[in-house]
Amino acid sequence: MAKELTSKSENYSQWYNDLVVKADLAENSAVRGCMVIKPYGYAIWEKMQAELDRMFKETGHVNAYFPLFIPKSFFSKEAAHVEGFAKECAVVTHYRLKNDPDGKGVIVDPSAKLEEELIVRPTSETIIWNTYKNWIQSWRDLPILCNQWANVVRWEMRTRLFLRTAEFLWQEGHTAHATKEEALEETFKMVNVYADFAENFMAMPVIKGHKSENERFAGALDTLTIEALMQDGKALQSGTSHFLGQNFAKAFDVQFANKEGKLEHVWATSWGVSTRLMGALVMAHSDDNGLVLPPKLAPFQVVIVPIYKNDEQLSAISAKVDEIVGKLKARGISVKYDSSDAKKPGWKFAEYELKGVPLRLAIGPRDLENGTVELARRDLLTKEVVNIEGIDEYVENLLENIQQTIYKKAFDYRTEHTSKADTWEEFKEILAAKGGFISAHWDGTSETEQKIKEETKATIRCIPLDAEEEEGKCIYSGKPSNKRVIYAIAY
Amino acid sequence: MAKELTSKSENYSQWYNDLVVKADLAENSAVRGCMVIKPYGYAIWEKMQAELDRMFKETGHVNAYFPLFIPKSFFSKEAAHVEGFAKECAVVTHYRLKNDPDGKGVIVDPSAKLEEELIVRPTSETIIWNTYKNWIQSWRDLPILCNQWANVVRWEMRTRLFLRTAEFLWQEGHTAHATKEEALEETFKMVNVYADFAENFMAMPVIKGHKSENERFAGALDTLTIEALMQDGKALQSGTSHFLGQNFAKAFDVQFANKEGKLEHVWATSWGVSTRLMGALVMAHSDDNGLVLPPKLAPFQVVIVPIYKNDEQLSAISAKVDEIVGKLKARGISVKYDSSDAKKPGWKFAEYELKGVPLRLAIGPRDLENGTVELARRDLLTKEVVNIEGIDEYVENLLENIQQTIYKKAFDYRTEHTSKADTWEEFKEILAAKGGFISAHWDGTSETEQKIKEETKATIRCIPLDAEEEEGKCIYSGKPSNKRVIYAIAY
Repeated sequence: MAKELTSKSENYSQWYNDLVVKADLAENSAVRGCMVIKPYGYAIWEKMQAELDRMFKETGHVNAYFPLFIPKSFFSKEAAHVEGFAKECAVVTHYRLKNDPDGKGVIVDPSAKLEEELIVRPTSETIIWNTYKNWIQSWRDLPILCNQWANVVRWEMRTRLFLRTAEFLWQEGHTAHATKEEALEETFKMVNVYADFAENFMAMPVIKGHKSENERFAGALDTLTIEALMQDGKALQSGTSHFLGQNFAKAFDVQFANKEGKLEHVWATSWGVSTRLMGALVMAHSDDNGLVLPPKLAPFQVVIVPIYKNDEQLSAISAKVDEIVGKLKARGISVKYDSSDAKKPGWKFAEYELKGVPLRLAIGPRDLENGTVELARRDLLTKEVVNIEGIDEYVENLLENIQQTIYKKAFDYRTEHTSKADTWEEFKEILAAKGGFISAHWDGTSETEQKIKEETKATIRCIPLDAEEEEGKCIYSGKPSNKRVIYAIAY
Repeated sequence: MAKELTSKSENYSQWYNDLVVKADLAENSAVRGCMVIKPYGYAIWEKMQAELDRMFKETGHVNAYFPLFIPKSFFSKEAAHVEGFAKECAVVTHYRLKNDPDGKGVIVDPSAKLEEELIVRPTSETIIWNTYKNWIQSWRDLPILCNQWANVVRWEMRTRLFLRTAEFLWQEGHTAHATKEEALEETFKMVNVYADFAENFMAMPVIKGHKSENERFAGALDTLTIEALMQDGKALQSGTSHFLGQNFAKAFDVQFANKEGKLEHVWATSWGVSTRLMGALVMAHSDDNGLVLPPKLAPFQVVIVPIYKNDEQLSAISAKVDEIVGKLKARGISVKYDSSDAKKPGWKFAEYELKGVPLRLAIGPRDLENGTVELARRDLLTKEVVNIEGIDEYVENLLENIQQTIYKKAFDYRTEHTSKADTWEEFKEILAAKGGFISAHWDGTSETEQKIKEETKATIRCIPLDAEEEEGKCIYSGKPSNKRVIYAIAY
């Protein structure tokens, strides 16, 4: 293969970095911590966006756009929020450059200093709630169900492509409601949308649950999360939905007149997923040959490679391929026909394996004679020869099967890597031996959570929504607990 | 009407500002010069994006994403570019805030000063060509046909919603080619895509042409533009496509090995349209009652308003409306049924007129009896009663007719406001009397162009692609000229 990958078992972290770069998903840029999302990677992100956007709209949301910059003072208005967000961020202090009097390029013009510094948004609750103040007077103005697709910046010191970058792309939903119940309902609704997307499009099983207080969003009363398991046994937080109570409404003085004409503060939620999902997608399914993409998110689902020795053979094959492509497209299947002369079939096979194309069709002169085509599945790396007659229906069913098989593999991996621990020793043994999710009792205190993190790096990923009542003892403190929570070492 | 607009004839500028705000397209934010694009405005922008994105992909382009920040030194690498772009811009100098020791919120942490300042991108040629350097080695790597949908920031002192804002949304295409011919072909191809979009989706006729040297993009060898005429007789530059020659390749040392193995510098284009198109759309078609949206870009094309006195009537009407909605949707027509009880039909009629919904259907008990519906066109403000039987086909044809009628109205306006001037006196008279486009001879010098601008505020909008050879004399200098150019006072 042209582009050798580090093997997953040898060095998982290096395997991931290699894969993201060599499969043309993304690369580091000249700006520290900021990535370039390359066309192939961006095509996957566009597929994600399209599905999520459809799901948001089907649940009653609309898109809008709010400013990139936030006045510094806005962050100080919500006490918890400023602690969590306003620190490591990009600060705009000036609005003009001028020619360097020494003739060496340009310098910042000291006379163009802003009166108040602007922060490049790390998240937009403050600027949005400052805007909502003018949109909301009465209960008739509620609910507001806005989403925004945007870039955000958090000045991370240690960055990794997709997983943690200074600038990333995301969507942030910000909703305003007349009642606590309605805001809570929205919070749950959106974590369910995220779980639906993760499982049915990314083919990635997730656990839905509450974050512990330690891990909550800065300014939230409750944070719901979806947690996925990567193939190295580490967890990846993949989406969050926050119940913000009346915190931002109070900070920005957003009140509405209820049906009785009395003023009340508005209830809020916010929820987001980001290009981090790209990292999750790569790490959840891929192998030593490259990406494994679920058909529903693959930029193209099928690639067709002709095997030929001369132009005559190629034109006969291409005529047949045109037919096949027409039939596949009619079923909504995306296809690429790679008849380029620059590379040999073997190189193309390896390249499309690296890129994770779910299904590869190869067709040569013998196939033409026999009315057959060779079909190779990316997920199982299996091959079969099938009749061209009825190929479109066959491929359609196969893509559905691949989608399910990828999900099942990830689901089975998670099942194998989800353990119960009832003692501290057991907990540490499991973590060391195979990692994964560990279901264990917790006394509910931040102190215990912090101690466990310090000693093992494991954190409480979530308190599952479907956690059953069960009497037990905290694995660390031995104090009573009435339900198990999910621990893991996380990205 | 609930929200009174300033009339267009009374104060065009105020009419525009009122309309943008009252039709819920956009509003000013707490951050100077940055706008909030409200859901209704954003829905129109999304329609624009979807069509343009489709057209870009059909012409072989792919999307990618490049960093928001550009190192300051990058701007100095292309001499003309730094003059045009690196001056009025947002400069990031620090990456951390800290708690104010005085306890008053947060302050910039002086110890977190960046070694090199980062500029929030005003346009991305520099960071992209710095990236392309690593993507291009051989002729086999060309062409690169990338587009990016992004936000950009230019620190404008006088801002107007959509037309000129500090932050705006846009797309910027950046292509790399092996030959000058191919790059030139791309430059023309994209200005044609823009003209196609403006005319067939925005219903806005445009003149395609070359910019004069004065008005060229900083760093370009040629800038092609589409110029539209607004209803106040002013021109609005609506999209540009730049032939950049080898300037950026040379500045960032991007060379490729040609088929003979020799190194050559790469040829470049860039092209963009922005949320400024929203301003163009508003100003090209709207009237004193509000927006007039071409059906192809309307968030919903049809609104249905029930006229009823009691719940019984409403439910009978709603049953019939459900049928109609189903049939319209089956034809791909977007419909909103507004049966809300909070507002009277008269208020709704005015509201949807303000919002520019192309077609309004009203249906009451009498209509139910007669099997009819009242149909009101937004563009002509005419009404007619038609049979419900066959309404879907009727509406489909009517929407097509509205699209064409809006275009024709704008086209006729432009024809009436396009004049030839052969003397300096004539030129000034026309400008003062009716504005619009003036076709006149020019001696080809920047000095003359500058003088005309100083004396009249009119600029050369473009040298039309289809300008005929014609001997004449420059209206200002009297020097010989061989073709007419298009002048106007512009936004």
